[in-house]
Amino acid sequence: MDFFEAVKKRRSIRRYTQDPFPEDLVEKALEAAVLAPNSSNTQTWNFYWVRSEEKKKTLIENCLSQSAARTASHLLVVVADPKLWKRSQSSLIEWAQKANAPKEVVMYYEKLVPIMYRWGFLNLLAPIKDLIFFVTGLFRPIMRGPASRRDAQEVAIKSAALAAENFVLAISALGGASCMMEGFDEWRVKKLLNLSSSARVVMVIAVGYEAEKGTWGPQVRLPMNEVVHRL
Amino acid sequence: MDFFEAVKKRRSIRRYTQDPFPEDLVEKALEAAVLAPNSSNTQTWNFYWVRSEEKKKTLIENCLSQSAARTASHLLVVVADPKLWKRSQSSLIEWAQKANAPKEVVMYYEKLVPIMYRWGFLNLLAPIKDLIFFVTGLFRPIMRGPASRRDAQEVAIKSAALAAENFVLAISALGGASCMMEGFDEWRVKKLLNLSSSARVVMVIAVGYEAEKGTWGPQVRLPMNEVVHRL
Repeated sequence: MDFFEAVKKRRSIRRYTQDPFPEDLVEKALEAAVLAPNSSNTQTWNFYWVRSEEKKKTLIENCLSQSAARTASHLLVVVADPKLWKRSQSSLIEWAQKANAPKEVVMYYEKLVPIMYRWGFLNLLAPIKDLIFFVTGLFRPIMRGPASRRDAQEVAIKSAALAAENFVLAISALGGASCMMEGFDEWRVKKLLNLSSSARVVMVIAVGYEAEKGTWGPQVRLPMNEVVHRL
Repeated sequence: MDFFEAVKKRRSIRRYTQDPFPEDLVEKALEAAVLAPNSSNTQTWNFYWVRSEEKKKTLIENCLSQSAARTASHLLVVVADPKLWKRSQSSLIEWAQKANAPKEVVMYYEKLVPIMYRWGFLNLLAPIKDLIFFVTGLFRPIMRGPASRRDAQEVAIKSAALAAENFVLAISALGGASCMMEGFDEWRVKKLLNLSSSARVVMVIAVGYEAEKGTWGPQVRLPMNEVVHRL
């Protein structure tokens, strides 16, 4: 499907038919998801595709039993966890060496990424990092984060959101419908998926085929001149 | 362009040719950006298209003078600000009434959204909201945020990231190249754009036509079975 058509056809659909959405198309959409840009290519994301009936039932309850969750053919949980930088580090160093990237790129993954994504026991590194950023920043432009655990989670959440957007657009391009849900109990979802304490649940995505009354009405957006500012 | 082709062609390009990228294509990509799903359709985002030579020069410095910023044909700053819920509230209430949405939808925009996006003077509402979420959450699944200013910013950042992803994919579909940059001085960029204190700079996006050596090498990602978990 044409890119702009896929973008225009994507709506947040809150009711799905009982027709199962093909699993291989969900897989294809997941392959598009991970092609999203992400912070330093650390890929600090995980996608939980909840298929067991029992777990799905609990997940629906944890999504406050909203209709999109209840009627979905598939439910996927998008998770961000800044600690996952460790998972990709070695392959990124190997990649940089193979690509003959400048020594700085290898150094970046060996030395800088671990510092960026660390906040220390009880967040104790954060105020030290903040102070360094503040003092250095008095003299020249500098990146002011991530310092705290929350900062690192924010970076990971942002990247995971980019992947999630690729995913829902891909579902649209494949003729399906989806709904990104933020109405869920994060604490209970983390427990259900047995996630580590540093992980954050970015969203739960419902996938299926649109049923009647899948939306309240036509899509509305603010006029472009209210959101785009030319300077 | 086909959706999956646009996804595959998108790479983070760090060097652009001197050919100007047409402004009407940037506009078309911005129109695709705002079609992204976003939290409660509050559209708490703004896109600053920095065109004046003087401001662009400062913005490049604030992006630590990285090559993607230096050589870009266009620089756009994606901003999230939870306080922008106020901008869309009246048109969303009007839309819900016109669409004959259930009374709950109108109530949601009239009563619930303002509570969700408020953190009170000095964040004082946040601990009260957190306590209510905690106590209610003992008995049943409940959304546990946003409570604090940071929580509300996180919601806004997530939505703005979705729009930004639509934007870079659209640029790819239109034959251009882009780079999402997180390496910038947020404090200085906020000052340059004269942003309100609650606003957050989500990313700066460089747009142009790819020059030679735009990337270090082929795109790499972790194997799918390391990031997708079937439960």
